[in-house]
Amino acid sequence: MPVNVQTNTLTGTSKPSAPHPVPVATPSLDHLTGEAERLFEKLAELSRDKTGVSRPSYGRTESIAFDMIEEFARTEGLKTCRDAAANLIIELGEDTENNGYVLTGSHLDSVPQGGNYDGSAGVIAGLLCLVEMKRAGIKPAIPVKVIALRGEESAWFGACYLGSKALLGKLDETEQELTQRDDGRTLREHMAECGAEIERISAGEKLIDTGRIKAFLELHIEQGPVMVARNLSVAAVTGIRGNIRHRRIKCIGEAGHSGAVPRWLRHDAVFAVSELITRIDDHWTTILQHGGDLVATCGILSTNPQNHAMSRIPGEVTFSFEARSQYEHTLAAIEALLHSECATITYERKVKFEFDKPVKTPPAVMDENLIERINNACMDEGLPVEAIPSGAGHDASLFANAGVPTGMIFVRNRNGSHNPEEEMDMEDFIRGTSVLYRTIMEFE
Amino acid sequence: MPVNVQTNTLTGTSKPSAPHPVPVATPSLDHLTGEAERLFEKLAELSRDKTGVSRPSYGRTESIAFDMIEEFARTEGLKTCRDAAANLIIELGEDTENNGYVLTGSHLDSVPQGGNYDGSAGVIAGLLCLVEMKRAGIKPAIPVKVIALRGEESAWFGACYLGSKALLGKLDETEQELTQRDDGRTLREHMAECGAEIERISAGEKLIDTGRIKAFLELHIEQGPVMVARNLSVAAVTGIRGNIRHRRIKCIGEAGHSGAVPRWLRHDAVFAVSELITRIDDHWTTILQHGGDLVATCGILSTNPQNHAMSRIPGEVTFSFEARSQYEHTLAAIEALLHSECATITYERKVKFEFDKPVKTPPAVMDENLIERINNACMDEGLPVEAIPSGAGHDASLFANAGVPTGMIFVRNRNGSHNPEEEMDMEDFIRGTSVLYRTIMEFE
Repeated sequence: MPVNVQTNTLTGTSKPSAPHPVPVATPSLDHLTGEAERLFEKLAELSRDKTGVSRPSYGRTESIAFDMIEEFARTEGLKTCRDAAANLIIELGEDTENNGYVLTGSHLDSVPQGGNYDGSAGVIAGLLCLVEMKRAGIKPAIPVKVIALRGEESAWFGACYLGSKALLGKLDETEQELTQRDDGRTLREHMAECGAEIERISAGEKLIDTGRIKAFLELHIEQGPVMVARNLSVAAVTGIRGNIRHRRIKCIGEAGHSGAVPRWLRHDAVFAVSELITRIDDHWTTILQHGGDLVATCGILSTNPQNHAMSRIPGEVTFSFEARSQYEHTLAAIEALLHSECATITYERKVKFEFDKPVKTPPAVMDENLIERINNACMDEGLPVEAIPSGAGHDASLFANAGVPTGMIFVRNRNGSHNPEEEMDMEDFIRGTSVLYRTIMEFE
Repeated sequence: MPVNVQTNTLTGTSKPSAPHPVPVATPSLDHLTGEAERLFEKLAELSRDKTGVSRPSYGRTESIAFDMIEEFARTEGLKTCRDAAANLIIELGEDTENNGYVLTGSHLDSVPQGGNYDGSAGVIAGLLCLVEMKRAGIKPAIPVKVIALRGEESAWFGACYLGSKALLGKLDETEQELTQRDDGRTLREHMAECGAEIERISAGEKLIDTGRIKAFLELHIEQGPVMVARNLSVAAVTGIRGNIRHRRIKCIGEAGHSGAVPRWLRHDAVFAVSELITRIDDHWTTILQHGGDLVATCGILSTNPQNHAMSRIPGEVTFSFEARSQYEHTLAAIEALLHSECATITYERKVKFEFDKPVKTPPAVMDENLIERINNACMDEGLPVEAIPSGAGHDASLFANAGVPTGMIFVRNRNGSHNPEEEMDMEDFIRGTSVLYRTIMEFE
């Protein structure tokens, strides 16, 4: 039941015209609200910084958070262990050695002075699902494991998804040599200190049998404003956007007297780049109108501060370019369009464009079947259904790209993430956890 | 005979398709080439800097240049004097006390480490016209005075046209208190030192009877590339562009996660400003297509360096805006268009624009009759005729706006002005001087 979403995502101007109604049904795990509140509060307390919380990747406070979650799980009678990459595993206690299982979880680290919910929501949601089963004596048809991953944030070592990369045999040597922003010690040292089996990781050994994972499910707060604007508590994620990035594209024109050079003799870098960005905006709109998925950003843009002046035709502009999409073909298309528009503008305005080497991250497609299961679970919880893409990257993308059927559940969140102002309502969290629980229980 | 100029000024893309043929006739004052070369060489020698020449406004080297020109004039039997603003006047020696006269000249100062021809070409051209008359024993129907003006360049005191402003009673008190960039002493002190009657200037007294000036004629090098592109040695100037300037316009959008905010929820300051500049470019083209005169420049443009990032939707862009035109109504139109486009973009993209107070300089229209006389003189010299606007300001604009019929003659020059690379061919200069001579001699 996607209500008006087509209309609204197609224009840059319209306000959401018919947001979803407020759900009235009580979430099925409503009785776990108190537990959820206490867990989040404890987690915040032990990682409180001057402002917000700080749980460094493979660091001391992250480990303290792991211990806290593990202790709570044990108190509830759940079985716990650490895997070879020092991630935390929690389960009911069934024999999962030789059988397939559903894996759910997220990460427990945070950016410096960040918010308390980014990552932890997915770990606590999984944990509460196990608590519900244990307390009610319910055994799911397919065993469930909850994983608390290490080091998802790039803020500490300059690389992300460290815990899941290590687990999947994808953490390369150069990443292991990266140093932590505060203490300057290598990731390798930090990992060893947390108990990771560094030799196996260095060898690129796969530390988990992905063939046995029937599904990976990650609940996470939304880091954008879509669910607030659309009045959605919970949403299935359609895919995780990949990206193409140019840190620095330079447009070279010709400087000159702003009064004395007529339009037909100008090679104005600012007019050239403005036209380029406006053309990209037109293509963006067209792609959206055809149902595509794309966001594009020039976050950095500047004339040359060393010689620009109000009365000087700008001879140089540098700018960054980033495009993100759930679809590889859209990223390829926008990259081709960028180059063809630059070629046209080069011809028409007699300027030149110089490109740095683009950095590319592939998108991750969520499993169709899991999206449908999550949507069904939403309906069973009396929630509206509207799947949305994830603009930020997640551990889930690594599992998806490792061939594990993967699904994500977004929970509404205000003010973005990576800052202390992130704001998730506990009621929305419990709705999301209830959707996760229903999704897990439907596996047979 | 404007050859193809319409076609060529209308598009941003076409190259000059049919530049004027190279003139074959010998300039009528060809025999003064040696004098011209020696005068320019002497002037360069006495004002040589580390690179280029420096003749500070109302400064020592400017005075030395004045003395050199005056001495040469006297050697040629011409009569000289200094006016109450310390400008130099040279004449044949007729009685001009009670009669009207034609005034021609330009300035002798230069920017720091500038070129040798900007200003001096107009003084030497006038001087050579008098030399020609004196040597040949020719007396023009209307007496001629040549003026070497002081302090035209704003580089030294931050204000321009000081000599002509003082002469016309327009140098205000705050300008007189401006300090020189190198020695920190006031303009007033510098003027007094050069012999200007500072009390009369302070009182705003008009030091010249403009009613008696039949015409003011200024020969000057072109500071843009048009005459090179159009293969014109000499051209009449249609008008001096005025301008409207905003040093700083700020576009305020909303920062956000570049991956997680879809197009319809963005308030991207870079896309907004790019669209604005592209819209202004469209209006610019339309105005040119209707035969209007306009140049527009955003010389300074930047996202906020304190918080911009490749993966952050830019929440703020600042930029300068300058438009120049020969026509007051075009400046008013482009200002109105700027504001109406900002209003549309504000509505469509939910951004905000903040404007600083614009600074405006009125355009100066050249006298139609004088343009025709200059064009006729060009034809008599066997030169093609194509009048072009002046993008830079000149002393001539002050005389024009004081009600004196004013004309300007441009001489072709490469590499712009205000730099040591300015490059005027001596043959072009002699052609320009010949056109000036013919124009003067036609007065009755």
